[in-house]
Amino acid sequence: MNLILLGADDLIASDHARVTDPRRLRHLREVHRATVGDEMTLGIEGGVIGRGRLESIDAESAEFSLRLEHAPPPPLNVHLLLALPRPRMLARSLEHVTALGVKHITLLHTRRVEKSYWQSPELGAEKIRQHLILGLEQARDTIMPTVTQEKLFKPFVEDRLPDLMTPATRGIIAHPGMVNACPRAVSEPIMLAIGPEGGFVDYEVEQFLSAGFQGVHLGERILRVETAVTALLARLG
Amino acid sequence: MNLILLGADDLIASDHARVTDPRRLRHLREVHRATVGDEMTLGIEGGVIGRGRLESIDAESAEFSLRLEHAPPPPLNVHLLLALPRPRMLARSLEHVTALGVKHITLLHTRRVEKSYWQSPELGAEKIRQHLILGLEQARDTIMPTVTQEKLFKPFVEDRLPDLMTPATRGIIAHPGMVNACPRAVSEPIMLAIGPEGGFVDYEVEQFLSAGFQGVHLGERILRVETAVTALLARLG
Repeated sequence: MNLILLGADDLIASDHARVTDPRRLRHLREVHRATVGDEMTLGIEGGVIGRGRLESIDAESAEFSLRLEHAPPPPLNVHLLLALPRPRMLARSLEHVTALGVKHITLLHTRRVEKSYWQSPELGAEKIRQHLILGLEQARDTIMPTVTQEKLFKPFVEDRLPDLMTPATRGIIAHPGMVNACPRAVSEPIMLAIGPEGGFVDYEVEQFLSAGFQGVHLGERILRVETAVTALLARLG
Repeated sequence: MNLILLGADDLIASDHARVTDPRRLRHLREVHRATVGDEMTLGIEGGVIGRGRLESIDAESAEFSLRLEHAPPPPLNVHLLLALPRPRMLARSLEHVTALGVKHITLLHTRRVEKSYWQSPELGAEKIRQHLILGLEQARDTIMPTVTQEKLFKPFVEDRLPDLMTPATRGIIAHPGMVNACPRAVSEPIMLAIGPEGGFVDYEVEQFLSAGFQGVHLGERILRVETAVTALLARLG
């Protein structure tokens, strides 16, 4: 926790917070080894960040006085369309991309996504939220990403994808063997599509290209999805 | 395995290989569901890559006829100086950076590296080699990285670091709060220093800066080491 993320429930006054859940308390006691008087970085979910002073801590709660005055870091202007990874990689990928500042994530079914992945408990709202929180706490951010699940490829690409694109949006599909190298430091909003292990099938690539997406590659090397996601976001951002 | 990496022991003729170890055999049978006649990508450790035809497969061995004709993908010209991560993150980081094409990795002790990490079985030569192989198999590469362990910061930075730098080498230390953003698409050879969770201490940063390193940051966000490593390599490469 490089930032303690406060929910509305944690605020007992506009400048005072009380943390009572076991996860954060344990982290404060065991990792931070926090003692009264310590200064830490805190932020309100969806809002400002700043510093807080630990006023009391025991086995049940920790109380902070707050001076919250900064905006959170700017978001990465990328909507990530990610073929649903297998559950363990999903968990890590959600943390990575949240830490990198992505605010819109669509998990997409594609031909090479195993259908069983959609049954994973990792897709439960509370599980996903836990990984997003870890990403925000890591990166010192407060703005929760939205995560949407699209279990049918064709209706998504044909019906809903056009509505997610503004005229300014640059659609990019990352796929080995595309002609162009991934562009760098793109200033427009981006819609970035990344396939599953094994890649998109040809039909899917064609659907994205017909929707105006540009195909890009990251070189000859085949990367794991979690490596590729971070590498693409770092290069585009 | 996007590539089956063959050691000298696996070659039974210049154009014929036999794989007998349980890990690769299991992968061929259970993941690839390989059957006689299948064409696959293979490569010789330290050498060429190409295609092979599966000539036979059973519980004890798989035999391939080979047409090896391509050079492996070009390496990333970055020597990575990585403060030793905790064991689980080390394993993943070795795979990521190998897949990204790094060929020289120095694991370094710094003030905020827990001393106990140096006792981890993950640092055994055979364990490290396994992770490097996984990275090569993932990225379809054959050139094994070298991994050096430096358990004393000061003698390394003062005595050995200068010998690792050529006049053309650009030294870069990634550290939150540095003035310059990480440069993009650097063409010179790079020596890239990345700190542990919690970062380098001021003294260490100063040592690198005195050695001619340039301090760079990746933005306001604090990233986990494994995310930062991939993001930095993607941006520099």
